[in-house]
Order: sequence, then C-alpha cells, then structure tokens
Amino acid sequence: MKPLNIGMVGYGFMGRTHSNGYAQANHFFPCEYKPVLKAVCARNKEKAQAFADNWGYESVETDWREMLKRDDIDAIDVCTPNNLHKEISIAAAEAGKMVLCEKPLALNQADGEEMCQAVEKAGVKNMVWYNYRRVPAVTLAKQLIDEGRLGRIFHYRANFLQDWTINADVPQGGAATWRLDAEAAGSGVTGDLLAHCIDTALWLNGSIKDVSAVTETFVKERMHSETGKKEPVKIDDACSFFCHFDNGSLGLFESTRYARGHKALYTFEINGENASIRWDLHDLHRLEYFDHSDDSIVRGWRSVHISDGEQPYMKNWWVPGLNIGYEHTFIHQVADFLKSLETGEQMHPSFRDALETQKVCDAVLDSAAQRAWKDV
Amino acid sequence: MKPLNIGMVGYGFMGRTHSNGYAQANHFFPCEYKPVLKAVCARNKEKAQAFADNWGYESVETDWREMLKRDDIDAIDVCTPNNLHKEISIAAAEAGKMVLCEKPLALNQADGEEMCQAVEKAGVKNMVWYNYRRVPAVTLAKQLIDEGRLGRIFHYRANFLQDWTINADVPQGGAATWRLDAEAAGSGVTGDLLAHCIDTALWLNGSIKDVSAVTETFVKERMHSETGKKEPVKIDDACSFFCHFDNGSLGLFESTRYARGHKALYTFEINGENASIRWDLHDLHRLEYFDHSDDSIVRGWRSVHISDGEQPYMKNWWVPGLNIGYEHTFIHQVADFLKSLETGEQMHPSFRDALETQKVCDAVLDSAAQRAWKDV
Amino acid sequence: MKPLNIGMVGYGFMGRTHSNGYAQANHFFPCEYKPVLKAVCARNKEKAQAFADNWGYESVETDWREMLKRDDIDAIDVCTPNNLHKEISIAAAEAGKMVLCEKPLALNQADGEEMCQAVEKAGVKNMVWYNYRRVPAVTLAKQLIDEGRLGRIFHYRANFLQDWTINADVPQGGAATWRLDAEAAGSGVTGDLLAHCIDTALWLNGSIKDVSAVTETFVKERMHSETGKKEPVKIDDACSFFCHFDNGSLGLFESTRYARGHKALYTFEINGENASIRWDLHDLHRLEYFDHSDDSIVRGWRSVHISDGEQPYMKNWWVPGLNIGYEHTFIHQVADFLKSLETGEQMHPSFRDALETQKVCDAVLDSAAQRAWKDV
Amino acid sequence: MKPLNIGMVGYGFMGRTHSNGYAQANHFFPCEYKPVLKAVCARNKEKAQAFADNWGYESVETDWREMLKRDDIDAIDVCTPNNLHKEISIAAAEAGKMVLCEKPLALNQADGEEMCQAVEKAGVKNMVWYNYRRVPAVTLAKQLIDEGRLGRIFHYRANFLQDWTINADVPQGGAATWRLDAEAAGSGVTGDLLAHCIDTALWLNGSIKDVSAVTETFVKERMHSETGKKEPVKIDDACSFFCHFDNGSLGLFESTRYARGHKALYTFEINGENASIRWDLHDLHRLEYFDHSDDSIVRGWRSVHISDGEQPYMKNWWVPGLNIGYEHTFIHQVADFLKSLETGEQMHPSFRDALETQKVCDAVLDSAAQRAWKDV
Repeated sequence: MKPLNIGMVGYGFMGRTHSNGYAQANHFFPCEYKPVLKAVCARNKEKAQAFADNWGYESVETDWREMLKRDDIDAIDVCTPNNLHKEISIAAAEAGKMVLCEKPLALNQADGEEMCQAVEKAGVKNMVWYNYRRVPAVTLAKQLIDEGRLGRIFHYRANFLQDWTINADVPQGGAATWRLDAEAAGSGVTGDLLAHCIDTALWLNGSIKDVSAVTETFVKERMHSETGKKEPVKIDDACSFFCHFDNGSLGLFESTRYARGHKALYTFEINGENASIRWDLHDLHRLEYFDHSDDSIVRGWRSVHISDGEQPYMKNWWVPGLNIGYEHTFIHQVADFLKSLETGEQMHPSFRDALETQKVCDAVLDSAAQRAWKDV
Repeated sequence: MKPLNIGMVGYGFMGRTHSNGYAQANHFFPCEYKPVLKAVCARNKEKAQAFADNWGYESVETDWREMLKRDDIDAIDVCTPNNLHKEISIAAAEAGKMVLCEKPLALNQADGEEMCQAVEKAGVKNMVWYNYRRVPAVTLAKQLIDEGRLGRIFHYRANFLQDWTINADVPQGGAATWRLDAEAAGSGVTGDLLAHCIDTALWLNGSIKDVSAVTETFVKERMHSETGKKEPVKIDDACSFFCHFDNGSLGLFESTRYARGHKALYTFEINGENASIRWDLHDLHRLEYFDHSDDSIVRGWRSVHISDGEQPYMKNWWVPGLNIGYEHTFIHQVADFLKSLETGEQMHPSFRDALETQKVCDAVLDSAAQRAWKDV
Repeated sequence: MKPLNIGMVGYGFMGRTHSNGYAQANHFFPCEYKPVLKAVCARNKEKAQAFADNWGYESVETDWREMLKRDDIDAIDVCTPNNLHKEISIAAAEAGKMVLCEKPLALNQADGEEMCQAVEKAGVKNMVWYNYRRVPAVTLAKQLIDEGRLGRIFHYRANFLQDWTINADVPQGGAATWRLDAEAAGSGVTGDLLAHCIDTALWLNGSIKDVSAVTETFVKERMHSETGKKEPVKIDDACSFFCHFDNGSLGLFESTRYARGHKALYTFEINGENASIRWDLHDLHRLEYFDHSDDSIVRGWRSVHISDGEQPYMKNWWVPGLNIGYEHTFIHQVADFLKSLETGEQMHPSFRDALETQKVCDAVLDSAAQRAWKDV
Repeated sequence: MKPLNIGMVGYGFMGRTHSNGYAQANHFFPCEYKPVLKAVCARNKEKAQAFADNWGYESVETDWREMLKRDDIDAIDVCTPNNLHKEISIAAAEAGKMVLCEKPLALNQADGEEMCQAVEKAGVKNMVWYNYRRVPAVTLAKQLIDEGRLGRIFHYRANFLQDWTINADVPQGGAATWRLDAEAAGSGVTGDLLAHCIDTALWLNGSIKDVSAVTETFVKERMHSETGKKEPVKIDDACSFFCHFDNGSLGLFESTRYARGHKALYTFEINGENASIRWDLHDLHRLEYFDHSDDSIVRGWRSVHISDGEQPYMKNWWVPGLNIGYEHTFIHQVADFLKSLETGEQMHPSFRDALETQKVCDAVLDSAAQRAWKDV
C-alpha cells in the first residue's frame, strides 16, 4: 500500500466531505494508494485541532504557506472560500504538490487560466471537486450517451433550486454565509450552483458556443457579518440562461435560492432523437430513462433504481435495492483519483476541464450585465 | 341507426354514470345501435322528473313493475341498492327485457344463481356494471397478460382503500349512506369494494380456489337514518383475504373505509416470471410496467401514460398526452354493449361472470366468520 | 331554459372538444341557458354532414358568410386554423353574433387589436378558448394565489413539451399538419403551445414587462402537403424565453416539439415567499403544493388529488377520488359562459384578455429574431 | 475517549455493514466511547485476514471460542448464519462479553428465550441489529406516533418484496445462498424479511395478539451447494399474514422473493384516525405523511425529504437536500449503542425486544402449517 499524504486547507462543509472520502475510499475500492491525513490547516488552531482529532489528521497548521514547505505532504486539498483558490493552488503547484481544488476553480476565467498554467508548468496532478459527475446515476447517463443511445441531441435543460436565503435576515459574509458575500464568493448562484450544472453539461453534452442570461438579486441589502452593518448584496440570487451547444442542441439553465420548497433540487434532462434521460439530486439513486424503441403500447419513462452491480460504482457497495447517498460522490472521486495515480491516466475534471466551466460562468455573468448574447 | 330503448330503475350516483354513458357512447364510438332514454323509475316522482329532465329521459315511472310492462322499452338498467337487484332483474328477464344490473350482482350466491337462471332461461342479453374492466390501462393489462408477456404468475395483490366512514357521526341507512346498512347493502366493503377487485382479478388472473379472510367493524354503532336511533353496525368496515388461484399464484386482497388519506385507492399489482404490472385508480391513466427482458442497466418500472391511439379505446378520444377519466369506463361499457348487439357476441361481464365474484365474496365472508379457510 | 344557438366554423379536433362541451355542460352544471347546435360550417359538405350527424347539429353550411346571415344563430364558434380567426371573428361581430374563438386569438398583435375593436364596437359577447384556466387544479391555483397564500412571488416557470415532430417525414400543411405551415399557423410552438403557458401565467401572475427569447428550427425542410414538394420550414420548432413580470418575479418559459418522451407535458411552477405550487397536464387532476408554514419536521410537497366537492368544479362531477380529464376543461368553459349570460358578468378570457397573450408572443418572436430583449 | 473493543464473528455482507458502522460512528456522532476493531473470526483464515486488512481489525481468529477467551475484547458481534446465533451468543454472555447479534435473534422462540436468559443472567449489554429502526424517516415515524399525531390506529400494513430467487437455477446452501437452506436459515422470507417488518411494527404499533398466515414455496427443488444435488427446498418463498394488534388495529404483512421488479421493496403504511404515514426502503430518505387537519382544499400526501437538521440523526450529516443511504442505519445503531454505554440507558432492540419478533415469526409459520389462526 502506497501512502498519498494529504494536507488540507480549510475544514468547513467541504472539509468534512473530502475527509470522509479519504477515510472511506479504500474500504470499498481496492487501490494501491491510500490517503494518509497528514495535516489540516486553518487560522483558528483550536477548531482545526478539533477537526483533526475527529478525522484523524496527524497534525495542524495555521499558515498554509508553512504546510506547503513540508516534505511529508504529497497533495494539497483546497477547501477554502473561492477567493483563496488561486493563490493557494498556484503556490502549491510551485511547491510541487498535487492540487485538489474545490469548485468553482476560480473567481473568473483569467484567474483560472493562471491556475491551469501553474499546474501544467509544474507538471503536478490536479483535479477539481465537481463531485456530481460521480453520482452513479450521472455516470450511467454519461455511459448511455457515449454508447449513442440518445441519438442526435435536441435539448439539454438543468436547474439547481434552493430556498435557504429567502429570509431577508440571513446575513452575508462570515463562516456560514460567505456565499452571499461577493468578495469571498465571486458570484452568487452562478458560481455556487450553476457551475455544477455547467460542469455536468459540458461532460455529458460537449461545448457551449454562446449564452444569453438574466440575473436577479431579490434582497438588495443584508447585514454583513464582518461589518455588522447592512451592506448592498452584490451577488446574483437567481440566474437563468439559454445557450447553443456545439452539437446543435439548445440548453436551458436556471438557478436560484428563492424557490420555496426546494432544498437542493439539482435536476437535468436531455432529450435525444431516440431516447431521453433525466435525473434529480433529491432522489439521486434513480435515473429516469425513456427509450423510444420500446414497444409503443408499453412505452414510458422508466424509473431505474441504481443499485445493481452492473451499474457504475455499485458492485463495490451493498446489494440491489440498497441506496448510497450524497457523500459517496466524494468517495468515488477519491477512489478514481487514487486509481489514476496507479494507471497514470488523466483524472477528470482537471483544472483545464474546470476552466471550461469558468468560461461559461463568465459569459453568463457578462451576458446578464449587458443584456446581450455572449460567445463563450 | 337502431334504437336501444332504455328503462332505468334508480337515479342515484350510478344512475348518473350510466345516463352519461348512454348520452356519450355514440359521440365517440360509431355504433349501429344508439340508446334512447325512454323512462326512469323511482318512488319519488319529483326527483325522478328532475333527473329525467336533466338527462333527457322521455318519461317517468314510479313503479318499476309498470315499466316492465311497456313495449317501448328494450333494456332495464338496475341502479337500485343491492337488495333490490334480484327481484327486479328476474322480473325484467321474465318480461323479456335485456338486463343491465349494477354490481354486485346479488346479496349472495344463491340469489345470484337464481338471477343467472332467470336471464338464461329467458334468453335475454345481460351484463353487470363492473366498470373498471374498461379503464384503458386495465384493458391493456388484460391484453399484455393474454399475450403472455408476464409468464408464470406468482402474485396478485389488490386493495381498495377509502376513508369516508372514519367519522363515527356518519349515519347508516337512507339514500346517501345505505351502503352502511347491512339490510340494503348485504355486506360492507366486501360487496362494495372488494367485489370490484375480485371481478378484475378473475378476469385478469383466472379462478380462485380457496380463501382465508378477516373482517373488522371499527365503529360498532351508528345512527340509523330511518329509525333515528343508534343501531348496531352489521357490515364489515374492513376486509382482507388471501387466496390461491387455479394458476398457482397467491392472491392478497384488502379493503377498508378507514385508511386515512385515501379517497378511492383501488390498486392492483401482478408479478409474473418475466414482467409485472401495477395500476392505481387515483392515477387511472397510467399503467406501471416492469419488463425483466429490458437491458439490465436501464431496467425499471415504466410509467406508461395511456393516451395513444394504439392503446385500448384511446383512438376514439383525443390526442396523445390528454387524459380521460372515471366516467369513460361507463361510456366504454355502453359502447361495447352496443357493439355486442351488432356482432351477437357475448358481452362481458355477464350475470354468469359476475356470479363468480359473488361466490368469492360469500367464501370470504364465511371464512372471516368462521376464522377458517373456505373453498370457493 | 333559454336556447343559445350555436354556429360552428370548422370541425377538427377543437370542433370535437367544443361540441362535447355544448353537449355536456347542462348535464352537470344547472344553467338557465342551454346550447342548441344549429349549424356547422365547412367547405367539405360530406365531412361536415358526418360531423353534424355525430354531434346533432341541425344543419350544415359550406360558406361561413352564409351562416352569419342566419337569424337562428346567436354565437359563432371559430374553430378554424389560425389564419382565418380574424376575418371570421370580425365579420361575426359585425353581424351581431357572439364570438367564441379558438386560441391563439390572431396571427399577431395588430390583427388581434382589430378583432378586439370589432367585438367591442359591436358590443357582442366574446371569449377565447384558453381552456387550461378551467382545469380544476389550475382554477384552484388561481384561488390560492388570490387568497395570498404564496406571498411575494419570486419565480414563475412553465413549459410545454411534445415530441410528435421529431420524425423528419412528418409533412407540413394540410388538415392534420397545418400547425407546421407558417402560413396557416403564424408561428410554431410559440402560438400553439407557449400561448397556453402565457395565458395561464398572465392570469395567475399578472402582466409581463419584457422578454428575451431564443427559437430554433431543428428540421429545416419538410414536404408540404399541398405542393407535394419539400419546402423550407418557417415555424419555430422550439422556443424559450425569460421575462420580468410587473410584480418583480422572474419568468422562464420553454416549449418544443422535440422533447422525446413527452406527449403534451404542460407544467408550471410558482415559487412564492410562503408557498409554492406546481401542476402538470399529464396528471392534471393533481396539484402539488408546498406550504412553508407547515411544521418543519413534516413539511413537504403535498400531492393534492383534486376530486373533492370543495375544490373548483368538482361538486358537479362524481365523488372524491374519481378523476375527470381533459375534455372537461371545455365543458367548464361552456358552463361558465352560459352562467355569464345569466349574470351579465364579463366572461374570461375575453378577446381583450387574449390580446395580452398575443402581445407577449409577438415580443417573444421579435426578441428571438433580433437576439435582444424586447418590451411587451 | 474510551475504547469499546470489538470481536466480530463472520465477515459476510453484515460483517461489512457493521464494520463500516464502527469505522464511521465517531466521525459524525461525538461519543465518549469509540469502537476498536480488535479481532475478526472466521474458519477461513486467509479470507478473514483480507477482511481484517481492509477494515483495520488488529487480529484474526479462526475459532470463536478462542476469541471469547481474550481479555482485550469487550463485545462480540455475531454476524454468522442464523443457526449459529444461539451457541455463540450464549457462550459470549457466559464469558461476560456484551453481545451484538444479527437478526433474526434465533431459529425459533425457544432458542431465543434461552439467549435472553443467558444475557440477562450474565448482566451483559446486548442488542440485535434490526437496523431499519434507525432510518431517519422511520425514527421520525416513531416520533410522530409517540406525539399522538395519528390518533387511533386502524391499519398497519407492510411488505418486503424481492425478486432474486425467481430463477430456478439459483442454488441453496453455501456462503452466498445459505438463506435458501432451511438448516442454516431456519425459515425463508419469514425470518429474513418479515422479521424486519415485524420488528418495526412492534416498535411503532405495539404488540400483536394473533396471526393467520399462508406460505408458499414456488420452486420445489434446488441444487444444494454442499451436496451438489437437487434437494427439496424447505424454506418459505413467500409468506403473507394478517393479525390483530393489541391496540385494536388490523395488520397485513406480505413478503416474497418472487415479486418481479422489486429488489428490496420494504414498505409500511399506518392509517390513523387523524393522520397516516408510509415509507419505502427504495426511497428511504422520504416519509409520506397525510394530515387530515390540513385545510381540505390543499390536503394531500406530503412527500417529506428527510434531510433537515431537525429530523432524526440529520443534524450530524450534511445539509438540507442531501441524502444519506442504507449503510447509515448501522452507523446510527453503533452511535446509539455507544451513547447507551455512556448514559446507562437500555439500548433497543435488546435480545428481549427481538424475542417478541421471534414469537410472531413462530406463530406465523405455525399458522401457515396448520391453516389456522394462532395466538402469539
């Protein structure tokens, strides 16, 4: 068993999902490599230590630059707010570390491009945690598309609907609500939620040519956790866009945090000439599939329960009928990364892959600002 | 166009569904015969007249015996409470009229047998209004089974769940609640609801050999609308039974009026070696279908929306995607009856067919009373 | 009972739905007025006669101008392809007839404005058959919104997805496929399908300020039924748009005939501060409702089966749990129109109401052509 | 942190679920105690070693009696086929070890009674792995019932449907298919599947008075993995029963391995006077809830997505909208057991609790054999 020594920066929600991925991957996916949790880094030493104790990190750092100097660390996992991704990732690459960066890659395309160049110049392994590619149902969708079952694609539609910011008393800024602060987050739902939808779409349906978008900020001012005062809200609360894909299909995307009744409703649907697919994060263990070649009197949407050994990742889990959940996407991503170290194959999505999503996000925000179509 | 002159006895809920069937059948199903609404009969002349005016009955009678004497009437439609089915049907047969009787056929098997002998001796056309055979999804289920798609059948389960009698203040007896009065209804859910489930089951899955049942009466006394006093409730509020079918499959049936949240949830599911089917009255325009021969990675229950021209009855209605509802089952039954007059074929379910359901109901009630298995 | 003498122009799919509405309305909804089917008009006399025989029209005309001259006709029902709506409606108004026109009102806003002026000048009763307002679940949605249950509205989204034109061998033009011929239809999915979505949206959520749209024509050439030759397809196969409503909410609309697996999936969802609603034509007897004021541990989307007497229109139908279907929307519209004659209240949607939808359709098509936002 | 030293007997499917529970409990649920994986025991040393390496067991034993002698082990986890539960559990209790036994407790009531007496006499902590009590949705159901939200209960129905033994070529006996061998398993679906349904029912709805059952063995002979010959199948392939609960409600239970289309469809539904609940293992993160006190026009079954911090166990997992799965039931059971060590409270279900399920199973099998009602 070869160790993969991990140094993590940040210990928030994503710190937990990644740590769990490191802890569990080898229990279910036999790999030559095995993550070793060497250090977690955060400014608050006490909280970092509690996190380290819980997950078994061997040490704690309070300055990520110090962590980069350590020889006993192979890979840096960047779990910070978005505005720190660039600096840490580039420094990590320059220090010769593998870089595993949370999504979105960067605050904008220019920053992302620098980050790509840094990891490519350094020749270090890199990936971005767009975890939804590794929901078994989503991976199966990719397989069905690659097998040509859908035929010519006409439509791709996706949305990501939440409702947690409807209350105007939710503040912006700070540990729990930095996603509402434009400085820390870069954008609102576009970078947080649509980025997931776009990453999946690019993977399943290919490149996007141009976009036309609209954004809205429903609550114009919120208390800022740091200033303690009401400040203008500069992120997008909602964003919709349509687009043309290179393959000739039309895309339609929507995201909001003001859709009462939806906690995290990420759905997509793809309509092809011969078959259609849809999926929904709230019931992530099912893939809906419509096959036009079925005998017409019994043709209908099939609700496929993804728990059989023949379906992606599932032979490593339990038995047919028994579900896995959200956290498993990160376990799969760790397992696939470990496997890529073994085989030497390029892990996806790489920084370069994630930059494509960044380009679309930038075009979307530009389009909304200028009320005009924008090429990607 | 040949007239089929109808004389109806009763004008309650079923009087409306049948009248609508007569009014609509020829609008959608081209037939040589066409119902003509000659007379409706009820003791209350004023109410009968209002009903006649609404539906276009040409005349009103207050004594069904008088109606049987009329030469201008071809068929007697028996829409009365259950305890009058026998007397009217036999007299109608003896008067040479066709007899179209509401379900259940009779209060018990012995009465039903007399009724069968009467219509057979008289050689008159006859049928019983087990309308659910003619939900397009149910008719399609019959077709799929007859085509052999399911293979060997292992399980048949059905239930009919309602919640309208939970309130102990609902009275028994009288026009609206005669179904709670054992004298008028014969039995409770067994004759009212399970009879539907049994009729469908016999049609789809063949004969039943033996049964074991349990019944319950949750509310022991209710005000009687006629006496104005609390009287013991003698009907079954709930009834469950299992059974062996002749084809070796196991049956499981349940009915109740105490299933909070279900208005009229009639469902059945059939599990065969190769395929399974399920259906639900609350969404009657869908048939759920599972085909084990589907490619395993995309195998799942299909939700088949029954609205295409290739599906039973549907080419006579609207266009794909647009639903029909409950009342259409009666329209289909009228249309099929009219067609049977044209072709001379036996209409189903005949009195004789319906007697089979009566036998099972009797065995179920006997089994529950004696806490023992009973042969049918 | 007062007669309302009907003269219908056209006898296609909508001719059937309207005729059924006239035949059935009084069976279920007690009204002072009752439709009398005086005449149906079509160029093909034989087919018109067959239609008249089936539905009980007393006479047949082959020139609608002749029909307008008849004194025994009170109301003209315009069921022709879209390009004839204007001429017939204006002439009918000038002849002093009530005008009941199929949707969309006109080929464009200018024509629609002329039609409005004609009926208003003549002072004749008028309505447009946007039938989906009278699905009981949709009417209930209107009631819930008017009661203020949703609070401030953030999002309105709707789509209308079909798949019947994917096959490139479907022709354009002619009786069955005039909807693919720009000359007869005016537009493609915008006027055919989105017009329904827009009418409902304006009714439920108020006026639309501006729109940004995209259209696509996937199959560029189709055989024309009249010329027998391949001709360019000039209609929109798919159309999406977003918009701002006057109430500050964002709208998102999509329609296509290339969504494999959907026959007629008209859905809408409205997200308010306090509650959300969604509805789906494929299961039109259900309304999904989410109420944020529910106790949080048991809060969820409710699937409300619309069949109780307290829900709109349903006390006139069957009993709880038993569904009605598509055709009933037209029966309700006829019944409401008859009632409006009695009360003198304005029937909705009037020509003027429908003109608002036409304005949005025009803005949508302009926006798509010019790749720019358009005010309505 | 106090260690809880675990010695596990067996390493099959349940060995994996338990090991994962031990590995994960403290990552998510802060506890004073923490499991330490001291030893795994199995006859095949090589396989046991591989299992130990994967999960981090410190040592391997090949004779469970040796393991009982070790002072460094606090608790014995019995994961063997059913026919070994008794001997190992009693010996473990006599050795002063806590005993954590897989379900069903025993082959029959008499054995179970001996086991209860052994742990009670020894005064050792004990529990049985009826894991479905700790699906958050099921735990929430318990809470809702205990709060009195359902009122008087009328009906409890449950089923557990699978389809994996339809193929007559599936053998009996051996590591993968011992559940088809009566000697190893005791019974078929009754002990394997119905036992789960009964445990949940007793927990949620109280004691069962009497039962009436039917069983069926559809495939009469199967190859035996040990003899290599076709042998009669002595287990029940399917079993249904009804029962009376002490609270006056009727129960209806069904289980089979011949329900084509269902992998592991464990469902239950409870109908109370005021509210109803239903749940389904295939979508285990949802609880369906119907509350009759809802305003009637918007009353319907709520689909409650169990992922909020206020719902049982969920504040320790991710964020609203993100699912956990099957394996988490074991993590919860471990966490609750660790907590019970801290608080001294009795862990449920204890051996004594599980004996109640055993009594019902015995009565069910007796009833089926004798075709008669049996008291529990």
